[in-house]
Amino acid sequence: MSTSATSLREAFKQYVHTMKSYEEAVGVLYYDLRTQAPKKAGEGRSDVLGLLSTELFKMQISDTIGDMLNQLSEPEIHKQLDSIELKLIEELKKDYERSKKIPTELYQEYVTLTSKAESVWEDAKEQSDFAMFQPYLEKIVQFNRKFVELWGYEGHPYNTLLDMYEPGLNVDTLDRVFGEIRAKAVPLVSAIAESPHQPDEAFLNRPFDKQKQREFSEYILKEMGFDFEAGRMDESAHPFATGLNLGDVRITTRFVPNDITFSLFSSIHEGGHALYEQNISPDLAGTLLCTGTTMAIHESQSRYWENKVGRSFAFWKRYFIDLQKLFPETLEGVSVEQFYRAMNVSRPSLIRIEADELTYNLHIMIRYELEKALIGGDLAVADLPAAWNDKYKEYLGVVPGNDGEGVLQDVHWAGGSFGYFPSYSLGNMYAAQFMHTMKKEMPDYENIIEAGELQKLKAWLTDKVYRHGKMKTPSELVMDITGEELNPKYLTDYLEQKYKEIYRL
Amino acid sequence: MSTSATSLREAFKQYVHTMKSYEEAVGVLYYDLRTQAPKKAGEGRSDVLGLLSTELFKMQISDTIGDMLNQLSEPEIHKQLDSIELKLIEELKKDYERSKKIPTELYQEYVTLTSKAESVWEDAKEQSDFAMFQPYLEKIVQFNRKFVELWGYEGHPYNTLLDMYEPGLNVDTLDRVFGEIRAKAVPLVSAIAESPHQPDEAFLNRPFDKQKQREFSEYILKEMGFDFEAGRMDESAHPFATGLNLGDVRITTRFVPNDITFSLFSSIHEGGHALYEQNISPDLAGTLLCTGTTMAIHESQSRYWENKVGRSFAFWKRYFIDLQKLFPETLEGVSVEQFYRAMNVSRPSLIRIEADELTYNLHIMIRYELEKALIGGDLAVADLPAAWNDKYKEYLGVVPGNDGEGVLQDVHWAGGSFGYFPSYSLGNMYAAQFMHTMKKEMPDYENIIEAGELQKLKAWLTDKVYRHGKMKTPSELVMDITGEELNPKYLTDYLEQKYKEIYRL
Repeated sequence: MSTSATSLREAFKQYVHTMKSYEEAVGVLYYDLRTQAPKKAGEGRSDVLGLLSTELFKMQISDTIGDMLNQLSEPEIHKQLDSIELKLIEELKKDYERSKKIPTELYQEYVTLTSKAESVWEDAKEQSDFAMFQPYLEKIVQFNRKFVELWGYEGHPYNTLLDMYEPGLNVDTLDRVFGEIRAKAVPLVSAIAESPHQPDEAFLNRPFDKQKQREFSEYILKEMGFDFEAGRMDESAHPFATGLNLGDVRITTRFVPNDITFSLFSSIHEGGHALYEQNISPDLAGTLLCTGTTMAIHESQSRYWENKVGRSFAFWKRYFIDLQKLFPETLEGVSVEQFYRAMNVSRPSLIRIEADELTYNLHIMIRYELEKALIGGDLAVADLPAAWNDKYKEYLGVVPGNDGEGVLQDVHWAGGSFGYFPSYSLGNMYAAQFMHTMKKEMPDYENIIEAGELQKLKAWLTDKVYRHGKMKTPSELVMDITGEELNPKYLTDYLEQKYKEIYRL
Repeated sequence: MSTSATSLREAFKQYVHTMKSYEEAVGVLYYDLRTQAPKKAGEGRSDVLGLLSTELFKMQISDTIGDMLNQLSEPEIHKQLDSIELKLIEELKKDYERSKKIPTELYQEYVTLTSKAESVWEDAKEQSDFAMFQPYLEKIVQFNRKFVELWGYEGHPYNTLLDMYEPGLNVDTLDRVFGEIRAKAVPLVSAIAESPHQPDEAFLNRPFDKQKQREFSEYILKEMGFDFEAGRMDESAHPFATGLNLGDVRITTRFVPNDITFSLFSSIHEGGHALYEQNISPDLAGTLLCTGTTMAIHESQSRYWENKVGRSFAFWKRYFIDLQKLFPETLEGVSVEQFYRAMNVSRPSLIRIEADELTYNLHIMIRYELEKALIGGDLAVADLPAAWNDKYKEYLGVVPGNDGEGVLQDVHWAGGSFGYFPSYSLGNMYAAQFMHTMKKEMPDYENIIEAGELQKLKAWLTDKVYRHGKMKTPSELVMDITGEELNPKYLTDYLEQKYKEIYRL
């Protein structure tokens, strides 16, 4: 290899490592801010976060990286590169080219707009006042339509936004898979509502000591294989997970005094994200590929562990006895069947983040259809609240009493995140599809869970998903693991079987 | 004011704010690493810390700052600047010019050397093997002698190093003040050793519940006026304080199961540092002047609160009852007099960080004399262990059994910090001198402490010391507050009076 190629590759490696270091610094500062920092720290800290994020962004679009990417693409050099370098170049080129197409002033204006919009949204939500937020959302939608024009698109303009979160995904695919889910889920939701066999869940609202809740969450995380020497668990208002580096992956949860389910399922959910980040191949350490491949695949892992494992009967056959030991009085006289059914109550509701495994997908579908229409120019922002309420009535049979618990409930649009929502449901679909293959490859799958050998599940997922980090796209992963493309049938089959059994339909 | 002056001043302000932001980021990352980060986080994290520290250093010596400082010094512009800008320029010029005199390669070599030396020192200390560390220390001393040559010096070469930590300080002053302290302290130490009135301290080694220790530390910190909405307290192996921004000043402590004194006096000591950092004038926020003026003045505050307040009889007359309420069994039958005397045992020892208020200064004096001789070329590194042991014998009457508990006990020299040690004793002197004025200006000083009105002390110190941040030099502060220059008499008088009373001499 020529010296210039060697030194170019070395410089590129360094450059990427510096970007990753800025990312890690931002991660630590955010984590600190949300879990540790005293009340008055915030104002000063946001400047620091702004500085570091800006440095990182500048590195993404600098002439230095532009030149490097050009040079690395020259055939003589390109053919010498290894697979990690090639993938990094692919990813960085995408960011670079996308950013270059947006005039800097336009982008700055947009950043200022969304930052302002988020704080207006907060007030608007509290006051249930859509009119207050409307002019901001109108501008945000206009900006996004403009960006799509500058970036270019194939088929529907919304495809370009989808592709940012889930490469290769488009509205044709989403319309099809959501259509299949809707066809199965809507009648299932109605049947459940009419079933006389509603689970008893009153005992869930008894007092659960916070320290013991923490103990149980930590116990289950250890059972899953979460490495507490390479991570930690803290408390924050909104639970989240963050992979700072391979040896430091953190999650948060929140302990609600009269509710064991919130902390427990938050911990398992975030624990699923964390297992992914802790088990990426060390080859990728210090590169931008050392993270989950997309939001949707990440969600497939958090949702697999939370719902497919943590809300399964096999899981509670093993772990209910331990929970009962911790809370002997609170759970006195509750059987494992009762507990399992209470963990799986399904009921149409207004708020996405409180929705159960089944109705959740309908909440997402509504958002998908609405944002597709907004970006496509088929729906005016002024008509959004009415459209929202109509869809809730149609899919879930409930209507928000006000916009605060309706169209204003999520921060995503205020932040300009269009194309993000579908990831949540895609996560559910991927999780079900992966589980289907898992069961074929591990014929004693249920027994494994019932025996508490959760680390066998982790080992399988590490081999198939985790270790690859960002080296494989979602479609490569799903094809390599399951031998077919994304197929919503596995999710609908799973949901039908589970809920028909619980509600005796 | 002309536009170009305005925009220059604005650019300067921004530049300084960015430096301060890097400093804050490094502070948060260090704090996290020492109190929160899981075991395996370290390797990845040290790269991030390296990046941010390097960025900060680059900003200190960049051509950009050099040009800015030049332009700001032009008479037309200079005369328009406010006092904060003038002080910032003075400080930054000092750093800039000092850094510019050292060739970059030489400095890089030195950074690598000290980083390696610190890890060699750690092993050498553990194995009590000075020979292992000797070649590193020889190089470090050579480097420092070389640096002093490049920077230039007046009188003794060590003066230049002293000036870095305590501007204006020189060996003439230090020789004089340490001489006065030695003359009083050495005979006092002997007299104490021979006194038949040794305090009973056996009860201090009874069990003290960790959670209650924390409670008491937090209680005393609140009494002192530590603002928990603008700070927090955590645990770490070695207690420290860090001012991240005006709204976020944190301290750490360590809870020792059979010892109430360690956590309590660590908390008060670090709390003294924290009061300083929390009470700087908001005018200085976001600038490099928003911190304590020097290490020695900082130590004067930690040591004032720890020793002059926390180890005073008046303090325990007020707070012993509260401590006893928390530990009724452990402190059963112990009187406030007994407790006070036990808090103030003085005994010659080998280890600086375990030394009492009186003998501490002798530990520092030994280090001062030795490093002055090393830098002056009057002592070879090879002869250092013998010189160390001789001085311990002479001043404290004790001789280390090995170099691990002797010359290898402190990390400072491995890190290249020559000129730093005197700050600790200067802190004691400033504290005593400030307290003398305080008592004159607050005639009911003892009653204030006995009544638990500690916040009156904080208010006085805020007005005289804290609010000024780095706007005043130590000599300006001591002159403005006490009307005279640094005078060790206040420390020796205080120590004599206190210990003669305790040991009935």
